[in-house]
Amino acid sequence: MASFANEFGPHAPEVTYVAHAFDEHLFDTGEIEINYVTTGDPSRPALLLIPGQTESWWGYEAALGLLADHFHAFAVDLRGQGRSSRTPGRYTLDMMGNDLVRFIDGVIGRPTIVAGLSSGGVLAAWLSAYAKPGQVVGAYYEDPPLFASEVRPAVGQGIRQSIGPLFALMAKYLGDQWSVGDWDGMVAAVPDELPAWMGMVAGAFGMGEGGPPQPLKEYDPEWGRAFWTGTFYGSGDHERMLGSVKVPVLFTHHLRIIDEATGALMGASSDLQVSRVRQLITNAGQPFAYVSLPSAPHPLHSHDPQLYVDTLTTWATSLPNGPGT
Amino acid sequence: MASFANEFGPHAPEVTYVAHAFDEHLFDTGEIEINYVTTGDPSRPALLLIPGQTESWWGYEAALGLLADHFHAFAVDLRGQGRSSRTPGRYTLDMMGNDLVRFIDGVIGRPTIVAGLSSGGVLAAWLSAYAKPGQVVGAYYEDPPLFASEVRPAVGQGIRQSIGPLFALMAKYLGDQWSVGDWDGMVAAVPDELPAWMGMVAGAFGMGEGGPPQPLKEYDPEWGRAFWTGTFYGSGDHERMLGSVKVPVLFTHHLRIIDEATGALMGASSDLQVSRVRQLITNAGQPFAYVSLPSAPHPLHSHDPQLYVDTLTTWATSLPNGPGT
Amino acid sequence: MASFANEFGPHAPEVTYVAHAFDEHLFDTGEIEINYVTTGDPSRPALLLIPGQTESWWGYEAALGLLADHFHAFAVDLRGQGRSSRTPGRYTLDMMGNDLVRFIDGVIGRPTIVAGLSSGGVLAAWLSAYAKPGQVVGAYYEDPPLFASEVRPAVGQGIRQSIGPLFALMAKYLGDQWSVGDWDGMVAAVPDELPAWMGMVAGAFGMGEGGPPQPLKEYDPEWGRAFWTGTFYGSGDHERMLGSVKVPVLFTHHLRIIDEATGALMGASSDLQVSRVRQLITNAGQPFAYVSLPSAPHPLHSHDPQLYVDTLTTWATSLPNGPGT
Amino acid sequence: MASFANEFGPHAPEVTYVAHAFDEHLFDTGEIEINYVTTGDPSRPALLLIPGQTESWWGYEAALGLLADHFHAFAVDLRGQGRSSRTPGRYTLDMMGNDLVRFIDGVIGRPTIVAGLSSGGVLAAWLSAYAKPGQVVGAYYEDPPLFASEVRPAVGQGIRQSIGPLFALMAKYLGDQWSVGDWDGMVAAVPDELPAWMGMVAGAFGMGEGGPPQPLKEYDPEWGRAFWTGTFYGSGDHERMLGSVKVPVLFTHHLRIIDEATGALMGASSDLQVSRVRQLITNAGQPFAYVSLPSAPHPLHSHDPQLYVDTLTTWATSLPNGPGT
Repeated sequence: MASFANEFGPHAPEVTYVAHAFDEHLFDTGEIEINYVTTGDPSRPALLLIPGQTESWWGYEAALGLLADHFHAFAVDLRGQGRSSRTPGRYTLDMMGNDLVRFIDGVIGRPTIVAGLSSGGVLAAWLSAYAKPGQVVGAYYEDPPLFASEVRPAVGQGIRQSIGPLFALMAKYLGDQWSVGDWDGMVAAVPDELPAWMGMVAGAFGMGEGGPPQPLKEYDPEWGRAFWTGTFYGSGDHERMLGSVKVPVLFTHHLRIIDEATGALMGASSDLQVSRVRQLITNAGQPFAYVSLPSAPHPLHSHDPQLYVDTLTTWATSLPNGPGT
Repeated sequence: MASFANEFGPHAPEVTYVAHAFDEHLFDTGEIEINYVTTGDPSRPALLLIPGQTESWWGYEAALGLLADHFHAFAVDLRGQGRSSRTPGRYTLDMMGNDLVRFIDGVIGRPTIVAGLSSGGVLAAWLSAYAKPGQVVGAYYEDPPLFASEVRPAVGQGIRQSIGPLFALMAKYLGDQWSVGDWDGMVAAVPDELPAWMGMVAGAFGMGEGGPPQPLKEYDPEWGRAFWTGTFYGSGDHERMLGSVKVPVLFTHHLRIIDEATGALMGASSDLQVSRVRQLITNAGQPFAYVSLPSAPHPLHSHDPQLYVDTLTTWATSLPNGPGT
Repeated sequence: MASFANEFGPHAPEVTYVAHAFDEHLFDTGEIEINYVTTGDPSRPALLLIPGQTESWWGYEAALGLLADHFHAFAVDLRGQGRSSRTPGRYTLDMMGNDLVRFIDGVIGRPTIVAGLSSGGVLAAWLSAYAKPGQVVGAYYEDPPLFASEVRPAVGQGIRQSIGPLFALMAKYLGDQWSVGDWDGMVAAVPDELPAWMGMVAGAFGMGEGGPPQPLKEYDPEWGRAFWTGTFYGSGDHERMLGSVKVPVLFTHHLRIIDEATGALMGASSDLQVSRVRQLITNAGQPFAYVSLPSAPHPLHSHDPQLYVDTLTTWATSLPNGPGT
Repeated sequence: MASFANEFGPHAPEVTYVAHAFDEHLFDTGEIEINYVTTGDPSRPALLLIPGQTESWWGYEAALGLLADHFHAFAVDLRGQGRSSRTPGRYTLDMMGNDLVRFIDGVIGRPTIVAGLSSGGVLAAWLSAYAKPGQVVGAYYEDPPLFASEVRPAVGQGIRQSIGPLFALMAKYLGDQWSVGDWDGMVAAVPDELPAWMGMVAGAFGMGEGGPPQPLKEYDPEWGRAFWTGTFYGSGDHERMLGSVKVPVLFTHHLRIIDEATGALMGASSDLQVSRVRQLITNAGQPFAYVSLPSAPHPLHSHDPQLYVDTLTTWATSLPNGPGT
């Protein structure tokens, strides 16, 4: 992997330059360059799509075609992802959230519906709490690991009892900015260094012998390290954040299983955790729409773009200035 | 509280000098002085009693009378507790564990059954894993917060979802070595700074308007801070420790309730956590005796000394060189 | 102090409402309210003034009168300071920096010269590195604790060897949001809990028997805790930040003494640290103007407003669109 | 390196089984096995030799021959070193110190002079402060990184400004227990990931293209990670420890250079740091013998065994029951 690893610097690595169905653009936030695409008519409601960890904007490629009928949609790469900048030592929720505040300001330029998957869903939550007044009109949290991605959460399983060991493994064998790049060593270590129940999850991440799948090539493993050590959230406690939500929320909750023997969470968040999310947002005076899809895979938007778009669009019509209103 | 606070230095504070039914002795470990009492005939099996956090050796006062028929019993104050030394900046599980290793060496001088409550139960676990060869013949964990007192445990609720906020509150308003000593401020802050379900727990700790009860006067609140921040366990992960247990274990499991709304643990450890304890100790090849007492209060030994002594003695007879064998 | 302490909630405490020579305004960032004043003609260059820790905007009150002849000046209270919002659990450099990004956007609305004292000088540095493109045209760092306020700095003394113990003391005895409020206990603890050389510094902060001076009443001691524990800088290493500076910098360096016996730094930053600052900014391609004022007190702008204004104005005329050009 | 890495488990790796001039023995502490050798007549004063980090007992091989004329000498491998146990997750100063307390108890069995190099010198300091009463009669600190190996030291450069980046590099590319084992990647990363002044140091550690030298093969890189992150010292602040020293101390101080541009410390501790060590030990009432050897390399005992033995022996004769008295 050495030659592959060496391609990575502060900028997006060469390996991210694969062809896509949408033209990519760069936006300068002052600190980083954000790579993004856009589609749909500017007369429609603005929609910002935020990928999950180990995904890039083009995870939305199929959905974008469908969304174009309802929204003026933008899909971005976050720092450390896709063709956006690598920022060694600087991966936190607050940094990424403010990157998007600047993106909405500088590129979209009007009130926006934000929708994100997984870590991107936590960013949607951050924006729903802390964006500038008027920037966000509604937020769709697509299967977000609220509480479950924290080191010491207020409620339920934390990162050690959910996806954390997998992030730690990637961070160790791949290294910040792929500096170590020992893919084969990582795959070989799965049986010894991950809990048994995570083997399946590792498979879902493509951690097999054929070499890294494209999304992982485009991912800076330092993200995972920042989650495992807790620096990602720093002073960004989820309970406090959710108590500050200022706009209507849609939450879709996908496959989640509690491992009986260990209590570990296979999935993004538990029912208990979602019930606390609901309570906090409701107490903050905001509408909370909840859709349980217990058999849906984590990234609904790529696995079932039509269901994703229908769910999002139906909810969005209820928002002030939503589509079709 | 200022005058009270000022009494505290590196040595045990004056306020600990209240009368007891047993003579107290001091043992010099090289770093600290351990205060202890002893009773029973030296011909009987040796038994070391380790109090819980916010308790002193004399929590065992009633039990000691009964234990004297079966054991040569020793009850100690840990560092930061009772009349043992205060050690600012130095409160960890490994330090306290090695204090007891030296105590067994220097005072007891022969193979010993160890029994501890709560944090003292975690110390019993530490001794069952890491004491010198031959020092410990069996360990009784009395309602220990295994996993539940860790910041990021392998299984179940961690310190934030169990007793932690209470320790944090005491540490804040009382200060290391009672240097702040604002008892009234602490009591007044209970409704605002503790989760609702903890109010009852705070009452059980005597956190009311009448001023600090004697056990809290004898307690260095820096302990609680060390638990809340995680420095107490430092490199002492419970999962790893329990996988190293080398002697038979008795575990009594007392009142525990999971708060339905928050998932918080009222009690020392959950059924799930105990099931992982059992698995780890059994995998380590050691007998694991479990007694569920779901209606017993946390400190069984002081609330029902007879039941405590009967339970301990019955189990101990099964040990090599146990009582009555 | 209890009644005083109880006045503090998430909003600015009542005690901050003292009369000033300038009208105060509130700006909503989306997360917090920023209190600010403004003076000078909008046709002049925009200038943002950022107070130091334990100061409020009105530390600039005397300077503002003089600055009005050259600039359109704005002076703000940061979160946790003066009449701006209190944000329990949320005090980091990145948060405060982005508060100011939004303030420049929403209130000033054009390219701005930023000038800050002490912690405010670190914020000026942050803005010079990470603000939006075009927001900042030059940055004046007034005696900033670069490196010296970090827990593990790249160069020279860190927070433990400079002002840190004082912040820790205030945080302990006053508590987050003044929740403990034990001023007298704090004053009494100075001789025991601070290094000898800090006694003088404590005096300079007004930590005496007459009760808290007005600036400390307006200060949330949680700031100090965030510096002491390192959460304030989180993922904001100074070396990395200074390597990203994008505009010309003025650095005034005031009284600094190295205590011979301990190597402790009395002052904001050492000559060695400033030399590294210069190297990093110069390597980043930016002009670095340095003025050594070894006999000037830390807050030059309030102690010698004329010298402050002259120094700032002279440098600013060299900037594109600076005053008088 | 994969096959090499895979040899490592909890026990000493196969690669440590190279021939030596002394017979090796194993001692069971209860938690780990300590590998050691012994020489000299039991009628002579007992001497415990503690190697430095990235060294094993046999760094003393040449010195042992000379020491045998004066002492009954024991040289050990610490946990994570040589043929002693690997203890994943459990590398702290207090653990290693208590390992040696048990070793003195169980193997030496009488009052002992302790002498250690570098990290082993910090352990000699720990023993001089915290061992059992009577175990230690004098302590020789051979070029120890007091303060300089801490994350946030009381005095002078911390780990980031001294050897830390080198330990971090080894930990990253070799992994805990050599699980990553990418020697070539590490060597290639030296120019990019280490400060320029460390290149020479890296060479001294044998970090070149010929593959790992024997001492590094015998070293668990998790040690280095524990130093870099600070978990090694946990609740073991050096200032506090040195204030508790209870026996006479010899300190030899070898090559040390302050890099003028960065203030970084090339060497184990600075003159300022040693002056604070002297002050603390003297205040604690103990004799402090200091020998400055500014041109001696860090491991004097292997580079100039005769000078090492002469220095140690001369000092030791001044101790109660020292050699030749």
